[in-house]
Amino acid sequence: MLNKNIYTFIGFDSEYEDSQIVVFGAPFDGTTSFRPGTRFAPAVMRNESYGLETYSPYLDKDLTDIKVYDAGDLEFPFGNTKKVLDMIEEFAKSVLNDGKIPVMIGGEHLVTLPSVKAVYEKYKDIYVLHFDAHTDLREDYMGEKLSHATVIRRVWELLGDDRIYQFGIRSGEREEFEWAKRHTNLTKFTYKGLEDVVNKLKGKKVYVTIDLDILDPSVFPGTGTPEPGGILFNDMMNIIGILKNLDIVGADIVELSPHYDNSGVSTAVACKILRELVLAISKN
Amino acid sequence: MLNKNIYTFIGFDSEYEDSQIVVFGAPFDGTTSFRPGTRFAPAVMRNESYGLETYSPYLDKDLTDIKVYDAGDLEFPFGNTKKVLDMIEEFAKSVLNDGKIPVMIGGEHLVTLPSVKAVYEKYKDIYVLHFDAHTDLREDYMGEKLSHATVIRRVWELLGDDRIYQFGIRSGEREEFEWAKRHTNLTKFTYKGLEDVVNKLKGKKVYVTIDLDILDPSVFPGTGTPEPGGILFNDMMNIIGILKNLDIVGADIVELSPHYDNSGVSTAVACKILRELVLAISKN
Amino acid sequence: MLNKNIYTFIGFDSEYEDSQIVVFGAPFDGTTSFRPGTRFAPAVMRNESYGLETYSPYLDKDLTDIKVYDAGDLEFPFGNTKKVLDMIEEFAKSVLNDGKIPVMIGGEHLVTLPSVKAVYEKYKDIYVLHFDAHTDLREDYMGEKLSHATVIRRVWELLGDDRIYQFGIRSGEREEFEWAKRHTNLTKFTYKGLEDVVNKLKGKKVYVTIDLDILDPSVFPGTGTPEPGGILFNDMMNIIGILKNLDIVGADIVELSPHYDNSGVSTAVACKILRELVLAISKN
Amino acid sequence: MLNKNIYTFIGFDSEYEDSQIVVFGAPFDGTTSFRPGTRFAPAVMRNESYGLETYSPYLDKDLTDIKVYDAGDLEFPFGNTKKVLDMIEEFAKSVLNDGKIPVMIGGEHLVTLPSVKAVYEKYKDIYVLHFDAHTDLREDYMGEKLSHATVIRRVWELLGDDRIYQFGIRSGEREEFEWAKRHTNLTKFTYKGLEDVVNKLKGKKVYVTIDLDILDPSVFPGTGTPEPGGILFNDMMNIIGILKNLDIVGADIVELSPHYDNSGVSTAVACKILRELVLAISKN
Amino acid sequence: MLNKNIYTFIGFDSEYEDSQIVVFGAPFDGTTSFRPGTRFAPAVMRNESYGLETYSPYLDKDLTDIKVYDAGDLEFPFGNTKKVLDMIEEFAKSVLNDGKIPVMIGGEHLVTLPSVKAVYEKYKDIYVLHFDAHTDLREDYMGEKLSHATVIRRVWELLGDDRIYQFGIRSGEREEFEWAKRHTNLTKFTYKGLEDVVNKLKGKKVYVTIDLDILDPSVFPGTGTPEPGGILFNDMMNIIGILKNLDIVGADIVELSPHYDNSGVSTAVACKILRELVLAISKN
Amino acid sequence: MLNKNIYTFIGFDSEYEDSQIVVFGAPFDGTTSFRPGTRFAPAVMRNESYGLETYSPYLDKDLTDIKVYDAGDLEFPFGNTKKVLDMIEEFAKSVLNDGKIPVMIGGEHLVTLPSVKAVYEKYKDIYVLHFDAHTDLREDYMGEKLSHATVIRRVWELLGDDRIYQFGIRSGEREEFEWAKRHTNLTKFTYKGLEDVVNKLKGKKVYVTIDLDILDPSVFPGTGTPEPGGILFNDMMNIIGILKNLDIVGADIVELSPHYDNSGVSTAVACKILRELVLAISKN
Repeated sequence: MLNKNIYTFIGFDSEYEDSQIVVFGAPFDGTTSFRPGTRFAPAVMRNESYGLETYSPYLDKDLTDIKVYDAGDLEFPFGNTKKVLDMIEEFAKSVLNDGKIPVMIGGEHLVTLPSVKAVYEKYKDIYVLHFDAHTDLREDYMGEKLSHATVIRRVWELLGDDRIYQFGIRSGEREEFEWAKRHTNLTKFTYKGLEDVVNKLKGKKVYVTIDLDILDPSVFPGTGTPEPGGILFNDMMNIIGILKNLDIVGADIVELSPHYDNSGVSTAVACKILRELVLAISKN
Repeated sequence: MLNKNIYTFIGFDSEYEDSQIVVFGAPFDGTTSFRPGTRFAPAVMRNESYGLETYSPYLDKDLTDIKVYDAGDLEFPFGNTKKVLDMIEEFAKSVLNDGKIPVMIGGEHLVTLPSVKAVYEKYKDIYVLHFDAHTDLREDYMGEKLSHATVIRRVWELLGDDRIYQFGIRSGEREEFEWAKRHTNLTKFTYKGLEDVVNKLKGKKVYVTIDLDILDPSVFPGTGTPEPGGILFNDMMNIIGILKNLDIVGADIVELSPHYDNSGVSTAVACKILRELVLAISKN
Repeated sequence: MLNKNIYTFIGFDSEYEDSQIVVFGAPFDGTTSFRPGTRFAPAVMRNESYGLETYSPYLDKDLTDIKVYDAGDLEFPFGNTKKVLDMIEEFAKSVLNDGKIPVMIGGEHLVTLPSVKAVYEKYKDIYVLHFDAHTDLREDYMGEKLSHATVIRRVWELLGDDRIYQFGIRSGEREEFEWAKRHTNLTKFTYKGLEDVVNKLKGKKVYVTIDLDILDPSVFPGTGTPEPGGILFNDMMNIIGILKNLDIVGADIVELSPHYDNSGVSTAVACKILRELVLAISKN
Repeated sequence: MLNKNIYTFIGFDSEYEDSQIVVFGAPFDGTTSFRPGTRFAPAVMRNESYGLETYSPYLDKDLTDIKVYDAGDLEFPFGNTKKVLDMIEEFAKSVLNDGKIPVMIGGEHLVTLPSVKAVYEKYKDIYVLHFDAHTDLREDYMGEKLSHATVIRRVWELLGDDRIYQFGIRSGEREEFEWAKRHTNLTKFTYKGLEDVVNKLKGKKVYVTIDLDILDPSVFPGTGTPEPGGILFNDMMNIIGILKNLDIVGADIVELSPHYDNSGVSTAVACKILRELVLAISKN
Repeated sequence: MLNKNIYTFIGFDSEYEDSQIVVFGAPFDGTTSFRPGTRFAPAVMRNESYGLETYSPYLDKDLTDIKVYDAGDLEFPFGNTKKVLDMIEEFAKSVLNDGKIPVMIGGEHLVTLPSVKAVYEKYKDIYVLHFDAHTDLREDYMGEKLSHATVIRRVWELLGDDRIYQFGIRSGEREEFEWAKRHTNLTKFTYKGLEDVVNKLKGKKVYVTIDLDILDPSVFPGTGTPEPGGILFNDMMNIIGILKNLDIVGADIVELSPHYDNSGVSTAVACKILRELVLAISKN
Repeated sequence: MLNKNIYTFIGFDSEYEDSQIVVFGAPFDGTTSFRPGTRFAPAVMRNESYGLETYSPYLDKDLTDIKVYDAGDLEFPFGNTKKVLDMIEEFAKSVLNDGKIPVMIGGEHLVTLPSVKAVYEKYKDIYVLHFDAHTDLREDYMGEKLSHATVIRRVWELLGDDRIYQFGIRSGEREEFEWAKRHTNLTKFTYKGLEDVVNKLKGKKVYVTIDLDILDPSVFPGTGTPEPGGILFNDMMNIIGILKNLDIVGADIVELSPHYDNSGVSTAVACKILRELVLAISKN
């Protein structure tokens, strides 16, 4: 009791030096167009993670068996998008330089860009698996190049064609769907074909970005732009069960917006997905 | 900026003269027995429609390709059921007289009665497709003939036997289910058989009424009388995909109650269904 | 109007003497670890039951055909777990002594222990069917033997091995899952195999305990510890359809927490399940 | 426990025959123009009254010292304003005929009209004290004569000039304020002058109608049309302290709308005012 | 009905050309540090203004007597603070150039800066009356010069010493309070002395900025950073009663955050203050 | 960033050894009779304290000038009242033994008992200042001696007559008010006379217990049993301004229930009161 109050996500309580995975919060929602508030996600998830068990009956693995460090949240200046992205990139690089795997909790989806950049700098031959309701492929959004609605387009500018696999997509402009046919591998509505992709990418370095709004709003109402027609929670468990065969070198889950999560259920969903994702990434 | 603030559902921004479809709000909830508030639905849907894209990846059609006019809401006197129904009938008639298709946003389900009346006056050989959790077939409700709980019975009095197809029904009095066996075509719980019905009705004039509480409350909590056990959002997308082969001459979606929609998800669901319904009705 | 205001769950309005089934509330949540408030469940369910029909299209049975007495809520002292459990046991015994079937509305899951005790005292050869997201098999919880997290372990101490069938379980400590392999029949995630169990138990006396958090939080957010990944409402209808072939001599449904049920949907779900359960238990 | 579940407001548990005061609910909100839901008020107040003590430190009186009967709620048909008003009038008359004082819980303010009518029929020389944020003096509202916005105008048609005293009024059309100058005694914003009025009315029969939105929305947010600038709770305690010197032969409190009372505080306020009002009316 | 749906704040329905006052929304919350969401304020206020009367019993004036144009909301790019401020400045200038008075609805407080700039460009000899809970006088906030927490400091850089009067201030860093002693006229907690200031400024051009969080959170919970200890609604009515003697050439009200206004009361408060402010500014 | 995530109330970040004051959470609500949930208060207050400044313009003191240690929350077993009280007493004793002042964040009011016990053991000549809406003087509550409704009676058993001063009391049984006349100094409704009491107690050791429900529910809705008619926030600031002249050797603030604090305002109120209380207690 007389040590200071240490505060981490449940089970992410190892020392930095010993850890294989470093979880950190990127509480940024500065380009959110519809309903802001994803900035509160990492802190709320830490709080509510104590409703979770450390053991996963899905993967039959326990957080107590692995080493994860929770670095807390980055502290951002408000209203300066550019500076925020730089801070994320820098932090992710330092984690990667120490030979660890960064797992980021957003914040809005734009935070994925600097995180992928940091990973890309280390591993040029990288693939991105993108789970989302939205294409996120606009050239710009109301004149802005850096936006949650353009983030995967920006990632594509970095990686080029045939590096990005998109699943669950059910909303976007017609032009984005057309563009995707030429530059990414986009699967509408579902995660059909994921197993084939994973087989193909075995042995490759992979970055996984999960926009939680891929889930149906019945399962996950607490997000900025709820899109009816999404996948269910057990689909996500299946997805992670498939992903565990990959060599994941960076990952994020984004777009939980706790103030739209009146019942607390979306936070519980996000916490369980994070537990499963971290267990799936960990090697032993 | 210096034009007055025009305010429509997203993409329903054509001029009246040019439009094939006329959308209007009927914000009436005067006979609601359990939880009132559907009166707020049309205005809230206009507001929240800006979280929606105009493009449908389900139908591969875009609202920008068609002509829809949003006439705003009818202004009703409170506490006078009869006068309200007359106003709706009169408005729907004027739309029909101008050769356009009326699509009404409720309000409670009783608003369907005058809308069907207006359509029936023009097209006597009309069929009604009714999607709902409730039978709505009572002879009266606490002594009242005009009620959300009696509306389809009143429609039947107009159209007679074998004109009404009911889907998704999972709540009502035993007597209503018995009565339906003799006078309507009622399918319990699901939309099984819809495809056959649609094939049979090809070439006929059809009115479609969607009580959104046909959806499971997990998908659509924001309604007056939530009935667990309903269909899912993707079922509704399937239904509309089937309906698009019909000659729909009038339609409505009713029973969104925004004040019970804390997360905003029900409104998002209603908006997307309206977009799809209008795209499915439009001819080109 | 000039009789005093009698207040029961819809359709549970017979006299005690005439009734086959006695429903009562056990508004206790004293060991709840995460989010308290199940104490409000029975009263809120009575209030909201008036949104329900008495007729079940699932079972084609009507509450008006059977005799059920609603005894109201037991009145508990706050902060004294032991005394509360004694009061429940005593009340359940008196119901059983009068040749009736007790059906209890929790409250948290610990209330199941005294209810099973009362039934066990009358029928030694009893089996327990346990529907839940959680194992509830801990030896103790933060040093306490009597807890919602230990309740099925305590029941096992009473009944011994091979008497308890658990379905839908998706959360617990690794040790609990291991322990269950030796002492209970635990089915992870689903209710697969229920039909076989029911066939095996035909003719036996059975106690059914339904922790409503077996349902997915999309269906049932209003509970203390929401666990994503659960069964759907129609699964529960199927389960009750199977259970109706058993000789059920006691039952409970627990863990509705109305203050986390902003939309009222969880309460509607609980009410409908109670209607179905009581109809399934009743003999005629 | 084995008596049926009797359900009254706390302390209103005497038999009808013995009671001096009869409390009843009039759950009608059919003409509400802004936010409906006052229909839920009487039931919610009964539920929440158990957070209240029976003893008033303001009046140093206890509900256990007096005889009050809670008749429950009248059951209304939905959508038929006329029939509802008739039912209220008839019930209030029967109470008055039995020599008792009716105290009504609304519902919206229109329910005051039939209640005053019943009292007026018995005591022609009646005065009305009206506490409200709104004038309620329109000739009609959107064409309707019977409306929450016209109710005091209708009462005036019954009683004539100089019979109505209005306090706390802070919202209305300019014309209503002008009209009031000629026909009622209207005090803007406060209850200044109430003591003089009460002195003048000593020995007269008085009807008291309290629209709870006279309270500032900080104190009482749970109402259909919140009007900032109102009186505080302790002002209301002072008002009732003054009123207790009158010969009150009928009363009501209206316009609690529980679904806009997220914190439960408005309901607590309404319950305490009802307790105080009933204690002030009772004679011993 | 067949005109397009025009949508304005109640009573602000004159044509631009005829109007003395132009109201517009600045839905920006990009630098909000605690709880974002003021971007929703202008649209929600328009919606809810229909619960308001056009007549003010405080000022005995009616919106129907004056000419106000509601220009709708400016459309901002997300995540680009600089561009947003430029758009506001440009719009305010165009209004001023047309000889009209701009009244802006925020958004967060930073939007005041470009609005004051536009006014200052036209009237160099301008004074600012600042009503707020917070000093807003930081040199920078987490490294950013443009922030809701620095906005009055930026205004001071434009206007210099002795031009700014601050009232109601009850939160800030010690250094800000010290700095204010040398550069502004800061009144802690209350609006004491306002009458003297107004007398001194008679005949001068004045800009009024009202951060609604000057109100106590009991009155106005719906704001990003609620600060207990504020003034009451009737204080604000008094303030506006005093201000009406000034020559106000520009004004704003900021920091309503509707998603934290569960009861709708804060929005009602904001709407009434806007009505009063506009009535007080208007000359006839 | 690479230190572990330390998590304290804002400004309470000194080391234990250096601190004059030790703040700790007692998240217990096991005897709460109406609405549970005060267990969440200390954690939520830590989270939300970051909306607060460290500087108090009321006391012109800054948390950065003093030394306070935040010890986090005690971890309690659920359902065992006795053990919880022992843990609190033991912790408070250890703080007192180290020559520091314990300041406890409840939890429900019963937690005051062990805290006073610990202080009493060290300083026998202790006085208790009790700020509350409720008498808390029952001999027992539904048969239980240890209850939030009996806590001051239990404290009296320890200290005897004329040691307890109660302010703001406005709810209780008649018998409690009678009893108080003989054994404590009880002031109804207000804090009138506090200054005299403080003058009398100068130089004495004093324990201060603040049940936040002394505040009016308009100011502080987020509590288990809201009691209309309370004091305002500025009254509380005055109270603390008076208390700062005392030699306070222990203190607590209790009964914030965050799940009933939808707007977050109650938490903001509690945080500011805690800041002021700690500043008032600190000596320099």
